[in-house]
Amino acid sequence: MKKRIFTPGPTPLPEEVRVSQVREIIHHRTSEFSKIFEEVCQGLKYVFQTKNDVLILTASGSGAMEAAVANLLSPGDKILVTTQGKFGERWTEIGEAFGLKVIPVDTRWGKAADPGKIEQKLVENDKVKAVFTQLVETSTGVVNDIQKIGKIVEKTPAVLVVDAISGLGAEPLLTDEWNVDVVVAGSQKALMLPPGLSFISLSEKAWKMVENSTLPRYYWDLKKAKNSLAKGQTPYTPAVSLICALRESLRLIREEGWDNVLKRHFLLAEATRRGVSALGLELFGEPPSNVVTTIALPQNIDEKILRKKLREEFGVIVAGGQGELSGKVIRIAHLGWMDKLDVIGVISALEMCLNDLGYPVEFGHGVKEAEKVLTGKI
Amino acid sequence: MKKRIFTPGPTPLPEEVRVSQVREIIHHRTSEFSKIFEEVCQGLKYVFQTKNDVLILTASGSGAMEAAVANLLSPGDKILVTTQGKFGERWTEIGEAFGLKVIPVDTRWGKAADPGKIEQKLVENDKVKAVFTQLVETSTGVVNDIQKIGKIVEKTPAVLVVDAISGLGAEPLLTDEWNVDVVVAGSQKALMLPPGLSFISLSEKAWKMVENSTLPRYYWDLKKAKNSLAKGQTPYTPAVSLICALRESLRLIREEGWDNVLKRHFLLAEATRRGVSALGLELFGEPPSNVVTTIALPQNIDEKILRKKLREEFGVIVAGGQGELSGKVIRIAHLGWMDKLDVIGVISALEMCLNDLGYPVEFGHGVKEAEKVLTGKI
Repeated sequence: MKKRIFTPGPTPLPEEVRVSQVREIIHHRTSEFSKIFEEVCQGLKYVFQTKNDVLILTASGSGAMEAAVANLLSPGDKILVTTQGKFGERWTEIGEAFGLKVIPVDTRWGKAADPGKIEQKLVENDKVKAVFTQLVETSTGVVNDIQKIGKIVEKTPAVLVVDAISGLGAEPLLTDEWNVDVVVAGSQKALMLPPGLSFISLSEKAWKMVENSTLPRYYWDLKKAKNSLAKGQTPYTPAVSLICALRESLRLIREEGWDNVLKRHFLLAEATRRGVSALGLELFGEPPSNVVTTIALPQNIDEKILRKKLREEFGVIVAGGQGELSGKVIRIAHLGWMDKLDVIGVISALEMCLNDLGYPVEFGHGVKEAEKVLTGKI
Repeated sequence: MKKRIFTPGPTPLPEEVRVSQVREIIHHRTSEFSKIFEEVCQGLKYVFQTKNDVLILTASGSGAMEAAVANLLSPGDKILVTTQGKFGERWTEIGEAFGLKVIPVDTRWGKAADPGKIEQKLVENDKVKAVFTQLVETSTGVVNDIQKIGKIVEKTPAVLVVDAISGLGAEPLLTDEWNVDVVVAGSQKALMLPPGLSFISLSEKAWKMVENSTLPRYYWDLKKAKNSLAKGQTPYTPAVSLICALRESLRLIREEGWDNVLKRHFLLAEATRRGVSALGLELFGEPPSNVVTTIALPQNIDEKILRKKLREEFGVIVAGGQGELSGKVIRIAHLGWMDKLDVIGVISALEMCLNDLGYPVEFGHGVKEAEKVLTGKI
């Protein structure tokens, strides 16, 4: 049976990316590598929508999150963290691990970060150095209003740091235009690569903060990475094969066009939402993102059994709930190398599995609504 | 966009097969190769359902068809050929190229070969040396009753030669039990390999005929191939990487079990037939095979436009009509490395494309019927 992965990372790999992984390794201290490296760094600026350098770290997304904290701040600094799910909590954990004073801006799981609350906390607390948030909170599937948050933070001395690990490519993010100072992304999402690389961009305002930051860092030293980049290199051995794969995926993205990548994510997400809703299932989270659709399971449907059935009978891998949503939801990603028939497949598999589990679903009904969206007839 | 191939060969490749193709080549005159070769020859006996040797030719299926003719017969010999479509005609063309006297047993395109007619022709014509037919006539999608034909030919001095190129693995074929003297198969069908290899088995009755045959042959010399096989070798350089890939596909087949492979083909074919019929489309050919479903297109639907739309909007590649069916049908294969959601995908794509072309199709209706079949609720 074919495996069909619908998790919000890792996501499926395009053939060009897969094939690139079997090529012979090249050495990184060569002009051959530098040429590739410079090409991908340019390509990353395009997808980050920034004129600033995008640095590549050989680490998964959480590593780049730590790098953001370690390079911007100093012991005892005050930071604001929006928490609307598991990944919001991660910023808090990193901040605390580095001895920062974390001021939470809590939101109920399933809701977006509240820009008004952020503004209020920035007024109430002086000397806040940075505001940390997510583009998309992957654990709930909710998208935050980064443009609005950007407008608020811009007016303060604080920098805005956005974890766009799952969101980049699925949701619009105009880094420079929206005054987002630091953006963090990962390879195994809309960038259609295996895990192992993360990416980070810094605005001028952020680089100035790096100058004054005294938190300890070595592997995460972004200034060193920026200096190496100017020479077409990385400070430490990079994940060479993943960088070669990145060249392939960025070429595919350029071919499709970044706007079309975003439009495709919207279309597939909308088809999934309509299809799932037509089955009488409730969506969880508001506003829902184009990364992943979170479905609140009916009382009598066991999450583990449903996921097992999807996996064993149809090769369909979806995500379960995390943290307080554990056991209560399933999450279907429509992220990265996905197309219309992938969405049809996962909805059809859901119809068949739910029916088998005794949930009253009319065969073909979810697919029907999805088809309307996919053909523009809704 | 993903490519999704629904043609009756080549068929999609399982990951194990694809990965095997990037391994370093090995030399064929080595014990390393012989070990692999012996393993695959054993595996082929299992899928051919025969105790006789199955010989491997580096050639596509038509090559093995020619080998059958060149090894069994002598100039001027009389042969019977059933013609129920394009591939039936191929036996005639080969026979005539080799100076044989071909007695046709014609059937209308879309019907199966008529065992009664074969019996009658065998009575009317003396000294018929061989009866040539197809397990599945791929051009119409029809399956022949080989068991019945076997019972008829068995009682005569003639041998029965079955082109099972597209049918092997999708339709039952009990080579020994049904007294099929020669079976020809190809790699790019239910055996889930790229094109480039063909396979042929011969009964004792057939080998005796080889002894007396005087048609010229060199590359196709099956006696030489049989002698080499005893030494774990081929007479000429074989397609080494394809034979290594064959080891992978035969392992997958053994794991799934040959009976289950056949059952899966039936299930997917039945779901396709029911789904397509539910859209008000007419199936062509009787009885339909589990290799490919042939759909008679409505008057106002242009075959070329429909296929282009399927390809460009959904990455779905289906076959058109051949010979006298050209422009009148499309053919959707459910052959080889295919699963339930592949069938759902192609039916959904068909729904969306037909609707767009103005054919009155209710979204989700074909998928609904297919889902019933796939879940055993019909």
